[in-house]
Amino acid sequence: MRIQAWMPAWLRHYQRDWLSGDVLAGLIVTVMLIPQSLAYAMLAGLPPEVGLYASILPLIAYALLGSSMTLAVGPVAVASLMTASSLAPLAAQGTPEYLAMAILLALLSGLMLIGAGLLRLGFLAWFLSHPVISGFISGSAVLIAIGQVKYLLGITFSSAGVLSTLAGLIKHLPETNVVTSGIGITALVFLFFARSHLALLLRRIGVPAKVAEMVSKLAPITAVILSTAVVASLDLAETAQVSIVGNVPAGLPVLAMSLPSWDALHALWVPAMLISLVGFVESVSVAQSLAMKRAQRIQPDRELLGIGAANIASALSGGFPVTGGFARSVVNFSAGANTPVASVISALMMGVVLIGLTSWFHYLPHTVLSATIIVAVLGLIDMQTLKDAWHYDKADATALLLTFFGVIVFGVEEGIVIGVALSLAVLVWRSSHPHMAVVGRVPGTEHFRNIERHQVETLPGLIALRIDESLYFANAQVLEEKIESLLQQQPGTRDLLLILSAVNQLDTTALVMLTELERDLAERHIRLHFAEIKGPVLDRLRNTPLGEQMKDRIYLSTHQAFLACSAG
Amino acid sequence: MRIQAWMPAWLRHYQRDWLSGDVLAGLIVTVMLIPQSLAYAMLAGLPPEVGLYASILPLIAYALLGSSMTLAVGPVAVASLMTASSLAPLAAQGTPEYLAMAILLALLSGLMLIGAGLLRLGFLAWFLSHPVISGFISGSAVLIAIGQVKYLLGITFSSAGVLSTLAGLIKHLPETNVVTSGIGITALVFLFFARSHLALLLRRIGVPAKVAEMVSKLAPITAVILSTAVVASLDLAETAQVSIVGNVPAGLPVLAMSLPSWDALHALWVPAMLISLVGFVESVSVAQSLAMKRAQRIQPDRELLGIGAANIASALSGGFPVTGGFARSVVNFSAGANTPVASVISALMMGVVLIGLTSWFHYLPHTVLSATIIVAVLGLIDMQTLKDAWHYDKADATALLLTFFGVIVFGVEEGIVIGVALSLAVLVWRSSHPHMAVVGRVPGTEHFRNIERHQVETLPGLIALRIDESLYFANAQVLEEKIESLLQQQPGTRDLLLILSAVNQLDTTALVMLTELERDLAERHIRLHFAEIKGPVLDRLRNTPLGEQMKDRIYLSTHQAFLACSAG
Repeated sequence: MRIQAWMPAWLRHYQRDWLSGDVLAGLIVTVMLIPQSLAYAMLAGLPPEVGLYASILPLIAYALLGSSMTLAVGPVAVASLMTASSLAPLAAQGTPEYLAMAILLALLSGLMLIGAGLLRLGFLAWFLSHPVISGFISGSAVLIAIGQVKYLLGITFSSAGVLSTLAGLIKHLPETNVVTSGIGITALVFLFFARSHLALLLRRIGVPAKVAEMVSKLAPITAVILSTAVVASLDLAETAQVSIVGNVPAGLPVLAMSLPSWDALHALWVPAMLISLVGFVESVSVAQSLAMKRAQRIQPDRELLGIGAANIASALSGGFPVTGGFARSVVNFSAGANTPVASVISALMMGVVLIGLTSWFHYLPHTVLSATIIVAVLGLIDMQTLKDAWHYDKADATALLLTFFGVIVFGVEEGIVIGVALSLAVLVWRSSHPHMAVVGRVPGTEHFRNIERHQVETLPGLIALRIDESLYFANAQVLEEKIESLLQQQPGTRDLLLILSAVNQLDTTALVMLTELERDLAERHIRLHFAEIKGPVLDRLRNTPLGEQMKDRIYLSTHQAFLACSAG
Repeated sequence: MRIQAWMPAWLRHYQRDWLSGDVLAGLIVTVMLIPQSLAYAMLAGLPPEVGLYASILPLIAYALLGSSMTLAVGPVAVASLMTASSLAPLAAQGTPEYLAMAILLALLSGLMLIGAGLLRLGFLAWFLSHPVISGFISGSAVLIAIGQVKYLLGITFSSAGVLSTLAGLIKHLPETNVVTSGIGITALVFLFFARSHLALLLRRIGVPAKVAEMVSKLAPITAVILSTAVVASLDLAETAQVSIVGNVPAGLPVLAMSLPSWDALHALWVPAMLISLVGFVESVSVAQSLAMKRAQRIQPDRELLGIGAANIASALSGGFPVTGGFARSVVNFSAGANTPVASVISALMMGVVLIGLTSWFHYLPHTVLSATIIVAVLGLIDMQTLKDAWHYDKADATALLLTFFGVIVFGVEEGIVIGVALSLAVLVWRSSHPHMAVVGRVPGTEHFRNIERHQVETLPGLIALRIDESLYFANAQVLEEKIESLLQQQPGTRDLLLILSAVNQLDTTALVMLTELERDLAERHIRLHFAEIKGPVLDRLRNTPLGEQMKDRIYLSTHQAFLACSAG
């Protein structure tokens, strides 16, 4: 009974007819997850088994704590890129320190996400605007794709930054390994074809649309199997120096955690925060858009706990930062996943792979993993949002482009900082421009409308200003300026009426401003009046010195205020 | 003629009867400025003449470019503290590098302010809430006062951070110089008395209130003159080791500027930005509150240019960061300053002091400057805002206290970063909680009101949701969640009506959300409708795929939408 209460709702009320969908989805996601987990470990600069480790326990942790029924958690491209880029200045790839820091990054990120979840900070995720996220993801995708070209062609050089990578590619192009690049480019073409045309082709020859869609998702694993078979049978690693994955240790990960050093914590907390932010925003957007299609709900604060627990589970089992992936979650959803049981099945299958099948990956060529990465990330490049934003709102389009080029020119971490700064700047800008209208009376009625849009009556010596937003520190000073400018335009003003019908909140800064305004106006022989204050705002205002001072000049309706001002 | 057009308005239209007020105010501000400029240079860790240099050209630069008629620019306590704290890790006080970096700080700060002015970023200043500013200033004041105690008592030790200063004070207390502390504490008591009781006393014996107020401002210069006379005549510097100002080079500052190194720029740009932000916010608040009293206006973007030019002028003449000071501006205002001519007169008088009177400061004891600083900054501690905020809004009071203790515990730069972060967090929180109400029809009318507050009629199968704020990235997802939660509460819903009467803006993120919402609802056989869209929003919406899709489901009024939904 007690255990039941701790079980998630989907498990307590599990229905047998959900199982077939969950099993099918779990199997198809596993088939996608095998090449992706190997490829994203490579992208993060980590040994292949780390990608597999990150694809077992994190899935189960999210299943138990997350709120989405269909999110597929595991290694993803952007978080892997961010891992590599934040570890690059701290340790060399292939060293035990590098691996330890990747694990620590997952741990820190998990702790931060859980902390944010307990503090109910999920709302912070809404503060990256859609265009900024789109620009960030597209920029990261370009960065990742450029970074993979050298592996695709079998050339080796080290580089930092996109310009040095491009220069290196041009310089070392003559060193291209013909066999490696032959395999890689063949895989690339095959995967592109599979992604864009295979489903269509299958449907044309009579395969049902859904099955055709699923079969096209098998392309990456097919490329992996075929290329491994070719490399192994022709011994291309020896005879043609094709770079292969090599020995992948078999066996489940061992749960372990060593105490991190202060230096490492100090170096990694900012990257961990950025990875958490990006991972959470990406994950919760996918989860929410899938939930909406099935009339389900996502709880952002539970998502923080779920993704956070997944990262801690990853760290405990020797993995690196994980989050909900876009492509895999969509496949999981359309393959018919009903509950996180699908993810649990994926996790079990990945465990089977780790126990028994790692030797199969020995001859897997790196170039095919690069082809998988390139095809996956080029699918993330989003031109549509740019086009739409360009038509609809040039400011949003500009923010998108600045973030996009920020990522490519300055790097992925700097790019997300630019994106956050742009989003906040836009927020600050919008908040500091509240809508306000000087109103007058529609003749013969008790209605008051904007004097610039309607034929209305005004009273000499009275300015009636309607404020269409809550008053707080971000716009209090703007209101003060607006009032002073109105008073200068109408020097004979004796009464100033503020209509507060849209003011849901009035913070301390606004209260201080209004208190000073009332006093300064009184010295200039101008009376301040309030009308249509909302109940909760009035309750708090009454107990302040301003409320005391103004108690005879607060009116229920604008009409009553007009009557009082024309009488007095 | 051409020159006239470049002259500020107050100069072009200067009237002779403004002059007496300007001259009197200019003289009284000079008398305050002499001890303060010496004291704040000491607080910033700089030689005394640097304070005097920063009190000449900056005043003239602001007079020509600023928009306030009564702001008194020059060295101020908080900016001086920030200068000292940002230079402490970079160079030792008294070295040429330290001075060069202080000058560079003023230059960078000036360039940043002018850049912000040209980009019209003045609105950013409103993003520090009043309680956060109050907490920051109070915290800085406590920090400054604690830091001055050792000079007041004539003891010497080095310390970093408030705890180490307190520990040092306790440890070295037995080393107190009796003569020094005697002079200092006498000055302190005298200054406190002058500030709190002198004006009252003078009024009681018949002195007019305004004159009494002005005379009490002469206390600091009186303390300076008397203590200098005592130290000089009794030769206390030799006989009792009283620390004195020493030789102050005579003569006007030489205009000069050396090219800064990249290292220095890299180390100073963040402190320069923080000093600019704090200086501008402090200055513009004073300027605006004084302008309001005389029905004058402040233009925030011109203020950025004015304060920016003042800092560049300070840097060119060997000075350190300056801004508009609170106490001096209030004195300038109440002494009757009509135009910036008052500041020009102060600047000329300070020039006279530098040319001819610097030898007078030789025997001025440091302990009296510390007493001046302590009295000035304790006047900045603001308990009233805390009390008011505590009564009115606990969240604001908490932000104030966190900033206050942040400054004291972590330091002044960290404190302002904490304050900005708290202000932004509050902004984000408020923005992500738009007010929304499900509405129904008031029987027998065409009015629609909140169903929770009024007796209204609803249609079965219809949810009518009024959104009381602009829709954009910060609240788009919140709206989506709200809708899903309403749909789950009312499973039979066939029509969802969004009443957009308060939506002044609808950004790309909100558009994407609404587009997806419409599509997902259609799949669930729920129709989305819009009513009361504002003209400008509708104009842009029409040309989007969503606008196309919905064109038969957009209604002028909620009433028409109700009729359509009940018919169809």
